[in-house]
Amino acid sequence: MSKRNLMRTDLIDEANEVVQHRTKKEKDTLYDTPGIQMNEDRNGRVIITHIETDASGAESIGKKEGTYITLSVPTLTVEDEDGFKQLEQQLISSLNDIHQLLKLSKESTIAVIGLGNKTITPDAIGPLAIDLFHEEMFSLSFEPGKVVFFAPGVTGQTGLETFEFVKAIAEHVKPDLILVIDALAARNQDRLCKTVQITNTGIHPGSGVGNMRNEISFESLGVPVTAIGVPMVVDAPVLVVEAIETVFKVISSQIGETTKASSALSVGSWLRSTDAPINIEAIKPIFGEWTSWSSDEIRALLQEVLPPHHQQLFVTPKETDSWVKRHAELIQSGVLSWLQDDVFSSTSP
Amino acid sequence: MSKRNLMRTDLIDEANEVVQHRTKKEKDTLYDTPGIQMNEDRNGRVIITHIETDASGAESIGKKEGTYITLSVPTLTVEDEDGFKQLEQQLISSLNDIHQLLKLSKESTIAVIGLGNKTITPDAIGPLAIDLFHEEMFSLSFEPGKVVFFAPGVTGQTGLETFEFVKAIAEHVKPDLILVIDALAARNQDRLCKTVQITNTGIHPGSGVGNMRNEISFESLGVPVTAIGVPMVVDAPVLVVEAIETVFKVISSQIGETTKASSALSVGSWLRSTDAPINIEAIKPIFGEWTSWSSDEIRALLQEVLPPHHQQLFVTPKETDSWVKRHAELIQSGVLSWLQDDVFSSTSP
Amino acid sequence: MSKRNLMRTDLIDEANEVVQHRTKKEKDTLYDTPGIQMNEDRNGRVIITHIETDASGAESIGKKEGTYITLSVPTLTVEDEDGFKQLEQQLISSLNDIHQLLKLSKESTIAVIGLGNKTITPDAIGPLAIDLFHEEMFSLSFEPGKVVFFAPGVTGQTGLETFEFVKAIAEHVKPDLILVIDALAARNQDRLCKTVQITNTGIHPGSGVGNMRNEISFESLGVPVTAIGVPMVVDAPVLVVEAIETVFKVISSQIGETTKASSALSVGSWLRSTDAPINIEAIKPIFGEWTSWSSDEIRALLQEVLPPHHQQLFVTPKETDSWVKRHAELIQSGVLSWLQDDVFSSTSP
Amino acid sequence: MSKRNLMRTDLIDEANEVVQHRTKKEKDTLYDTPGIQMNEDRNGRVIITHIETDASGAESIGKKEGTYITLSVPTLTVEDEDGFKQLEQQLISSLNDIHQLLKLSKESTIAVIGLGNKTITPDAIGPLAIDLFHEEMFSLSFEPGKVVFFAPGVTGQTGLETFEFVKAIAEHVKPDLILVIDALAARNQDRLCKTVQITNTGIHPGSGVGNMRNEISFESLGVPVTAIGVPMVVDAPVLVVEAIETVFKVISSQIGETTKASSALSVGSWLRSTDAPINIEAIKPIFGEWTSWSSDEIRALLQEVLPPHHQQLFVTPKETDSWVKRHAELIQSGVLSWLQDDVFSSTSP
Repeated sequence: MSKRNLMRTDLIDEANEVVQHRTKKEKDTLYDTPGIQMNEDRNGRVIITHIETDASGAESIGKKEGTYITLSVPTLTVEDEDGFKQLEQQLISSLNDIHQLLKLSKESTIAVIGLGNKTITPDAIGPLAIDLFHEEMFSLSFEPGKVVFFAPGVTGQTGLETFEFVKAIAEHVKPDLILVIDALAARNQDRLCKTVQITNTGIHPGSGVGNMRNEISFESLGVPVTAIGVPMVVDAPVLVVEAIETVFKVISSQIGETTKASSALSVGSWLRSTDAPINIEAIKPIFGEWTSWSSDEIRALLQEVLPPHHQQLFVTPKETDSWVKRHAELIQSGVLSWLQDDVFSSTSP
Repeated sequence: MSKRNLMRTDLIDEANEVVQHRTKKEKDTLYDTPGIQMNEDRNGRVIITHIETDASGAESIGKKEGTYITLSVPTLTVEDEDGFKQLEQQLISSLNDIHQLLKLSKESTIAVIGLGNKTITPDAIGPLAIDLFHEEMFSLSFEPGKVVFFAPGVTGQTGLETFEFVKAIAEHVKPDLILVIDALAARNQDRLCKTVQITNTGIHPGSGVGNMRNEISFESLGVPVTAIGVPMVVDAPVLVVEAIETVFKVISSQIGETTKASSALSVGSWLRSTDAPINIEAIKPIFGEWTSWSSDEIRALLQEVLPPHHQQLFVTPKETDSWVKRHAELIQSGVLSWLQDDVFSSTSP
Repeated sequence: MSKRNLMRTDLIDEANEVVQHRTKKEKDTLYDTPGIQMNEDRNGRVIITHIETDASGAESIGKKEGTYITLSVPTLTVEDEDGFKQLEQQLISSLNDIHQLLKLSKESTIAVIGLGNKTITPDAIGPLAIDLFHEEMFSLSFEPGKVVFFAPGVTGQTGLETFEFVKAIAEHVKPDLILVIDALAARNQDRLCKTVQITNTGIHPGSGVGNMRNEISFESLGVPVTAIGVPMVVDAPVLVVEAIETVFKVISSQIGETTKASSALSVGSWLRSTDAPINIEAIKPIFGEWTSWSSDEIRALLQEVLPPHHQQLFVTPKETDSWVKRHAELIQSGVLSWLQDDVFSSTSP
Repeated sequence: MSKRNLMRTDLIDEANEVVQHRTKKEKDTLYDTPGIQMNEDRNGRVIITHIETDASGAESIGKKEGTYITLSVPTLTVEDEDGFKQLEQQLISSLNDIHQLLKLSKESTIAVIGLGNKTITPDAIGPLAIDLFHEEMFSLSFEPGKVVFFAPGVTGQTGLETFEFVKAIAEHVKPDLILVIDALAARNQDRLCKTVQITNTGIHPGSGVGNMRNEISFESLGVPVTAIGVPMVVDAPVLVVEAIETVFKVISSQIGETTKASSALSVGSWLRSTDAPINIEAIKPIFGEWTSWSSDEIRALLQEVLPPHHQQLFVTPKETDSWVKRHAELIQSGVLSWLQDDVFSSTSP
C-alpha cells in the first residue's frame, strides 16, 4: 500500500466501468466491451470474479492489461474459520489458474516478497506474512535457493526505494516468478478485509498506470510478477463521498419503491449502493443541486473544504489488528500449500 | 475506550454547549452560565482549557460534575519532540492542579491503571503505558506497596468486568488515589492525538452519565479517581456528519465572505468549522433542505441509511501505531515525574 | 519462576530421593517408602509419572504433600507437531485425573492465572498463555463470570506482590479452582522444555516448602490451586555441577564397562547420568579427591569460587523463544479443551 | 552470530595469546611479538583495547589481519545510564578512529546491515537496531540513497544465504562502506553484554578465518566492511570448561596466597581467572590428573561425555531481553550520531 491519489482504489471490482456494469443488463454490455472478459462464479461462500483485459479494455477501465481475480466472502468475519478456509482453498486454486502458462515446476526459483510498513497496522499484511514464512522455514524442506522470502520494508524507513530492493534481489536470485503480498486501499468499506485480489499485472503504487517508475511488474523487472492483495483501508474523504452518495441512492430508491410491489424486500448491503440509477428529481428538494454532481465533483468540493488532516486519515474496521494477522495467515498458508503441493511437486514439462 | 453511542464524544471541549460558546461573545455567555466555570489559557504551544461544573452545570452540558482540564497542541506531529515536551510539562502541572485538595504525600498509596484492549492499536494507550512502567520499575525506588501499576485488559478478553477487576484491587490495596489511563473517542478529527484530557470525574464507559454500573469513579469505588485520556479515534458516522456540516459551514462562510474585506484571509483548520453560524438560506439551493436539519437529524438519517458495517469502522490517523506509542510514553513519563518529584517527595501536611 | 536457591529444582522427578530410586531395584524400595506412591506409565511417546505423597513422604523428599504428575516426551523437538499433540492429549487427561475429587461442573467458576515476567523470554510462558486466551476469548462462549484469565505480572514490575494480586482476585471472584501456569527451573538440562508438571500443591516460589508467605496454594488462599509448569531454565552453577558429575559418572561407567559384555551398548542420554553408582576408586586418579564429594559440597565450592555474575546466568536451549511460544500454545489449547469439553459440559453431581 | 565451533570466541580479547599476555610482563612480550600492536587505554569507565595485526601477527592469534577495538565497561548493568552513555561516546570516537583512512564524506553511500535472527532473543541485536533506524528514519534528513538500513534475516528463514543477500544489495547500491551489526559469542561469561567490539575485518561466521565462503568482508565483497558486535552468549560447554578452570586457578592461587601478605586482598572477578599460572602440583591431590590437561583436552572430554543437547544450550544473563534492547539502542544511537555529525557533515577532502 503506498501513497494514493484521492479516491484511488486498488480493486478492479471497484473500477467505475466494472461497478457500473453490475446490473444484469449492463453486465451483458460489459461482456460485449471489446478487450474485457469478465466472468463471475461462486464456489461455496466465495464469489470469484475473473477479469481479463487486453490493451484496449485496460485503457477503458483505467487499469493495466492482464488478469485480475478477486475472491470475496461478503459475510466474512474475523473469527470465521469456515470462511477463511474456503477463501484459502480458492486462493490456491486461483494461484494455479493464474500461473498456468508459466510452467512452474520443481526446477523453478520463486521469490515471495511482502510489501508494506510493518509499523502501520493496516499496512503490515505483507511483512507479517513473511514473518510467518520465516518462522516455519526451519521445518520446511525447500531445496536451498529455490524460494526466497523477504520483506524489504518501505522506502521511508530503509532509505532505499522498495523497487530498487526488489530489483537487487531479482538480479541476484534470478527467480522465475516474483510473488508480491500487499495491503490495498478500497473505495467501498463493504469490501474491507473481505476480498483477496490476485493479478499478474504487478503492483503499481502511487501514480496509477503508465508510470513505470517504481512499478513492480514484468515490464520493469523482466520477471513475471503476481500480486496478492487485501483491501485494508478506505481513505477518509473516500468514505465521506461514498456515504453521501449512499444517502442519495437509498433515499432515491426508497422514494421509488413506495410505488413498487418490491418495496417490502430488503436489499443486502453488499449490493445496495450499486444497482439502480439515482432519481435526481425526486431527491433534489431534500439534498439540493449537488445530487446531480458527479462523484468527481463532490470529491473535488470535499478536497477543497476539508482540512488537510482529513486526507491523512484511514478508515479501518475496529478489529484491524486481528484482520491483518488473520489475512497474513491465510495468504502465508495458501501460498505455502501452493508452493509445496502444486509447484515444487511437479516436474517441468 | 469502550462501546459508545453514536456521536458520542469523550471530550468535554466537544460537548455541544462548550463548542457553541467558542466565539468571544458566546464564551462570555458561558462564563455566566450557572454551574459552569470555564477558563482558557495558553502556555507556550499548549492551550489549556479548565472547566469546573457543579451539578446544574454538568447537567446542562451532559457531562458529570467535576473538573475537566484539556491540554491541546493543535500543531502537534508525531515526531514533534518539542510539542510532546511542552505537553508533558503541562500534564505534570495539571496533575498537581487537579489533586491539590487530596493532600497526597509520601504516605499515600496510588494505583495506576491502564484501561483498554492492547490488541486494538488505537485502544492500546493504557496497556502500553503500563508496560512502560513495568519495564522501568526495576530501576525505580518506590517503597514496596506504595504504587501499583496494572492493566486489567478488557472484559471480552479476561472474562471479568473491567470494573470488577479494578474494584478487586481497590478493595485489597486501599489506595488513596486511582489514576486511570485510557484512549478516548473524539467527534472532531482535528482533535485526534493532539489533546490530553484530565478529569477527576473518572471513566464512565458506554452508556453515558448516570449509569453507575461499570463506572470507574469515586462514586462507585469510594476512592478518588483521576482519568487521563487521549482521543485516538473518530467513529466513521461521526466523521461523515462532521464532514457534511463542515461543507455547509465553509460554503456558507465563503458566500458571506465574498462581500467582506477579510475574505482573502485564510482561516486555520483548528477553528474553521466552529466559529460562525451557518447562513442556511444562502446554501439551501446547493445542498437542499437538510442544511436546516440538526446534527441529530442528519446523524439519524445516516444511521438508518448506512450499512451496519459502517458503525464498526474507526477513523484514525495513518500513523496511529506511532501516535499510540508516543502518547503512552508521554503519559508514563509525566505521571512518573509527578509521582517521584511531587507526590512521594512531599511530606503529609 | 522466581528467585531460586542455588540447585533448586521445581520438578519432583528431580528430587534426590526420586532420582536416586530410578533403578529398578531402588524404585521398588521407593514404592515401599511410607507416604510415597509412585507410578510410571507410558502412553504413546509420553512418559507419565504419578506421585502421591502424604505428610511423611513429602518431608522425606523435601516437597509438599499432594499429587504430582509429570508428562515427558524425551525426544520432543520444537517443530514436533506429533509430540506436542500427544502431550496435549495427556495434559487434558491428567487435568481430569487430578481434579476428580473437586466435582467441577458448569456451575463452577475458574480463575486461570499466568505467572512470570513476560519481558524475560524463558519466564514468559504464563503471560503468553494468557495472551492466547485473551485473543480467543471473543470467539468463545463462556458464560460471563465463569472463567477469568489474567496475568498479574511480577512484583518487581507491578509494585504489588504476585500473591496479593492473586488474593485480591480470589477474594473478589471466589473461584472454585485457581489454575496457575508458570515456567519452572530444572536441574537436568535434558528435561528442559520436554516435560510438563501438574500438581495440586500450588506454587511456592523462592524459599521452598514451609514458607507460606507468597505461596499460591489452597493453604494460603482457601481455594484449590493446581499448577501447570514447564521447566525452561537451568541455573548456570547447576549446569556446571551436573556436567562435572556427568563426567565422573560416564568415565566411571566406561571403566567398569570395559570388562562387561554390555559395554558395546549405547546408553541413552535421558537415563545415562542416573542409573549406576560412581566407582570412585576407579576415577580418583584422574579427577582427584572431589570425586568423593557430595553434590552439595561441589556446589558449595563453586558458589564460593565462581564470580557472582555466574549465578545470574540462565542456561536455555537456543530456540527458547520458539519453545516458550509452543508450550504456551500447548497449555492454552489443552486447558481450553478441558474447560469446554470436560468441565463446563458436565452438570454438577 | 552463527554456527560456531565448540570453544569459539568472537572476541579478540579472548584469543589465547591475548589473554595469556595480560600480566604486565607478558604484555610487554606481546608488544614485542612481530605483527601485533596492542594498546590498552581507559576513558572514564571505558577500557579501550586497540589491536592491530598484520598477516603474521594475525596467524599467531588465529584471527584475521586488521584492526580490532574493544570497548569494555566491566561494571556495566542494564539500567546503568551513565555506563551506556560513556560507551556510546567511545563508540562514536572509535568509529571515527577505525574509518580514518576511508575518507568518508557527505558524498559517501553507506549500507548499515543488522545480522542475526530476530526470533532468537540473544541473536536479535542486529535486527532490533535496524528496526530502530527504520522507526526514526522518517524524522531524519538523509539524502535519498545515501544510507540504506536493512536486516536480511538468517538463511534458515529467508531461503537465501545471508552473504548473498548482502552481496545483492552491495552490487546494486555500491556503498562506500558496509557497517554490520551482530551479536557475538564470548568465552568468558564476565564479558557478556559488557563489551562492544569494532573491527574492519568483517564478519566471518562459522568456520573461522580463511573460509571466505559467506564471509562478509572487503575480501569477499570488494567494499570495506566494519563490524560492530556485542558478546551475548556463552555456549554451555564453554561455560563448563571455564568454570572448571576457574576452580583450578582460584584454589591454586588460594593455596599460594596463604604464604603471601597479599592473601587478604580480594581479587576482582574481571581479572581473577587470568593473571597467574596454575600451581598444578598443589591442586593435583584434590582435582586429579586433569588439572594438567590443556583447555583443549578438557573440552574434548566434555564434548565426548556430555549429551548432544548440551551443545545446543546458550548461557545468557537473566535479563537478556533488556540487554539486547539496550545494546541495540546504544549501537543505533551511536552509529546515527556518527553518520550525522561526523560523516555526512564533512566534505570530501
